[in-house]
Amino acid sequence: MKELPHGGDIYSIPGPVLDFSANINSLGIPEGVKQAVVSSVEGCVHYPDPLCRELRRALSEHESIPPDWLVFGNGAADLIFRLVWAVRPKRAVIAEPTFLEYGFALESSGCHIVSHRLRREEGFAVTRRLLDDLTPGTDLLFLCNPNNPTGRTIEPALLLAVVHRCAELGIRIVLDECFQDFLDDPNAHTLIPLLKEFPHVVILKAFTKIYAIPGLRLGYALCSDPALVQRLEQCGQPWAVSIPAQAAGVAALRETKYLERTRNLIRSQRERMIQELRLFGMDAVDSEANYVFFRAPRPGLREFLLDRGILIRSCANYPGLDEYDFRAVVRLPKENSRFLAACREF
Amino acid sequence: MKELPHGGDIYSIPGPVLDFSANINSLGIPEGVKQAVVSSVEGCVHYPDPLCRELRRALSEHESIPPDWLVFGNGAADLIFRLVWAVRPKRAVIAEPTFLEYGFALESSGCHIVSHRLRREEGFAVTRRLLDDLTPGTDLLFLCNPNNPTGRTIEPALLLAVVHRCAELGIRIVLDECFQDFLDDPNAHTLIPLLKEFPHVVILKAFTKIYAIPGLRLGYALCSDPALVQRLEQCGQPWAVSIPAQAAGVAALRETKYLERTRNLIRSQRERMIQELRLFGMDAVDSEANYVFFRAPRPGLREFLLDRGILIRSCANYPGLDEYDFRAVVRLPKENSRFLAACREF
Repeated sequence: MKELPHGGDIYSIPGPVLDFSANINSLGIPEGVKQAVVSSVEGCVHYPDPLCRELRRALSEHESIPPDWLVFGNGAADLIFRLVWAVRPKRAVIAEPTFLEYGFALESSGCHIVSHRLRREEGFAVTRRLLDDLTPGTDLLFLCNPNNPTGRTIEPALLLAVVHRCAELGIRIVLDECFQDFLDDPNAHTLIPLLKEFPHVVILKAFTKIYAIPGLRLGYALCSDPALVQRLEQCGQPWAVSIPAQAAGVAALRETKYLERTRNLIRSQRERMIQELRLFGMDAVDSEANYVFFRAPRPGLREFLLDRGILIRSCANYPGLDEYDFRAVVRLPKENSRFLAACREF
Repeated sequence: MKELPHGGDIYSIPGPVLDFSANINSLGIPEGVKQAVVSSVEGCVHYPDPLCRELRRALSEHESIPPDWLVFGNGAADLIFRLVWAVRPKRAVIAEPTFLEYGFALESSGCHIVSHRLRREEGFAVTRRLLDDLTPGTDLLFLCNPNNPTGRTIEPALLLAVVHRCAELGIRIVLDECFQDFLDDPNAHTLIPLLKEFPHVVILKAFTKIYAIPGLRLGYALCSDPALVQRLEQCGQPWAVSIPAQAAGVAALRETKYLERTRNLIRSQRERMIQELRLFGMDAVDSEANYVFFRAPRPGLREFLLDRGILIRSCANYPGLDEYDFRAVVRLPKENSRFLAACREF
C-alpha cells in the first residue's frame, strides 16, 4: 500500500472513523443537492455539456462576474494541473506549508520551484518577506487564502502589495480561495471584485469544501484574461465536469441558508476548539477557516486518536512541518466534544 | 455561441432530439449501474479513493491484467491529455481522420504533429503506408482501433508490424480501444494480451461508451511500463475519478448479459443500417463498431434530419473529410427505422 499524501483517505483505515482529516463542511451535503444528483443519473446516458451552460449562468450571477471569466474543472485540483500546463512556468514560488498539489503539479512539469517558507514564529502568516522572493524571472506564484493547513488569511493590504509587485514583474498569481466561503467575512478578503483590474490573477474556488461534495468533483477558476481562459480550456478535455457535478453545482447555489448556518457553526465551534486545544497543551494557530492547525507537545497523537475511532491529518509531510503538527476540521458540536475529550486524555 | 467540435452536443439544439451523434450504447445505462450511482450519493461527502481500490480489483480481474497496470481517469479524454503531458512528445503521428482530442491534446503541448492520412479510396483502412511515417525522431503514435469515426479495425498482422516498428524506433503507441467491446469478436483485435511484451504500448479504454455513461466520466489506461504508469499518475490530480463513477464502474463489470445483448443488437442493426444507407445512395463504410460512417450524395443531410428531430454527427471538421461525410450511431431497431426512413426521404 503506497502512502497517500492527503487527508480524507478513509479508505486506508479498517472500520468506520469520525473523519476530522478532510476540510469538508460538517453540515454534510445539502438535501437539495442530493436530490439534484439523484435526478441527474438518468441523463448520464448523454455527454455532459462542455460549456456547463446552466451552471455558468447561475455561478456568474452568484459571483457577480461575467460568465466568460469562468473555467470549470473536475475539482479545483484538476485546474491546478491545467494552470501549470497552460502557463508552463520555468520558475514558480509557493508560500509553504500549503496545499501539496501546487508543488506536485509544478514538479510534474519540470518547473523550478522556490519554496517561500512561512515561519512558525510568525504564526505562519504571510509577511512582507514574500515580496523578496518575487524576482524578475519568476513566472508564477501560488498563494492560498486562507491558507491550508494553517487557516490564516493574508492581510489585505499586503495581498494588494503582492498583486501589484507581480503585475510589475509579469508574474501570474494563482490565488486559491477554496476556503474563503468559510470565513466570517469573505468580502473582506476575496480578490474577485478586483479581477478586472488584475488580469494576471487567477482565482481558484470549489464546491467541494463549502457544499461538502468532494466525491463529486467540481471546481472553477476565475480570470479576466481571455487569452489565459482560452489556454486553460485548451489544456484539458471538453467534458471535465460530469453531469451529476453540474447538477449539484446548480442546486448548491440555491442553498443560501445553508451558507449562513455553516458560518455560524464554524465561528462558534472553531473558537471553542482552539481554546480547548490550548488548554490541553496544544499550540493552536489562530485559524480563520473551517479547520484548526495545532502542534502537539509530544508525538503519537494521530495513532492515539485513531485507536479511539477519530482520524486527523498528520502534517508531517508538509515542507517545514513535522510529526508534532496536525490539522483537524471543525465538525458538529457533539463530534468536536468527542475529539476534544480524546485530546484532553492524550 | 462557440461551435463545439464533437458529437453528443444535445445542449445546443432547441427541443428534444433522437441523438445519433454520440457513439453510446443504445441499450442505455444498465439498471444495476443506475442503482449503484444513486446509492453512492450519500458517500460523496467524502473524497473519492485516489487509488480506486475496489474498481481496480474488479477491473484487473475483468481484463485479466495485474492491478498496477491500470491508471484511471475522468473519462478516456482525461487520459489523452495526461498521456501527452507525461510523454511530452516533440513529434507525434496521428492516423487521420480520427478522434479529434488526440490532436487537440498534442497541439496544447506544442508538439509537432504529423498527420498520416487514411485514404477514402482505401476505405479509410490503415495500410502499410503508415510504417513510412514512423521515422526515427517520432516520439508518439496515436491509433484508434476500431477507428472513430470510420468504425474500421486495423488488420491484426499489420498492427503487430506497427507495434514492432515502434519498439525498434523507441516510439510509444497510444492504442485507443474504447470501441473494442462493440466488435463481434474483440479477442481477435485487442492488444491487451500482448501488453507484457510491449511496454511501449498504452491502451485506452472507457466505461463511457459500452456502458452508456458518458455523463459520469470513467476511462482507464493499461500499460505494463511501471515508469510510465507512475508518470501518468503524477501528471494529474489524485481524485480524478468521482465516487459515482467508481461505483458505476464496479456495478458495470457485473453486467455480462448486457454486453451479450449489446453485441447481438449492434451486429444485426449495423448491417441493416449499412445496407439500407447504400440503397438510399449513401456511400457507407464497412464499419465494425457501434456506429456507421457514410457519405451523402449531396450536402444538407444534417439539417434535413434535424428538422425531423434526428441529430447526426457531421464529420466536416475532421482532417480529410467534408460536409458530405457523416457518422450515425447504431440505435434500437425502431429508432434506426426512423433514421433510415428520413434518409430515404432525403
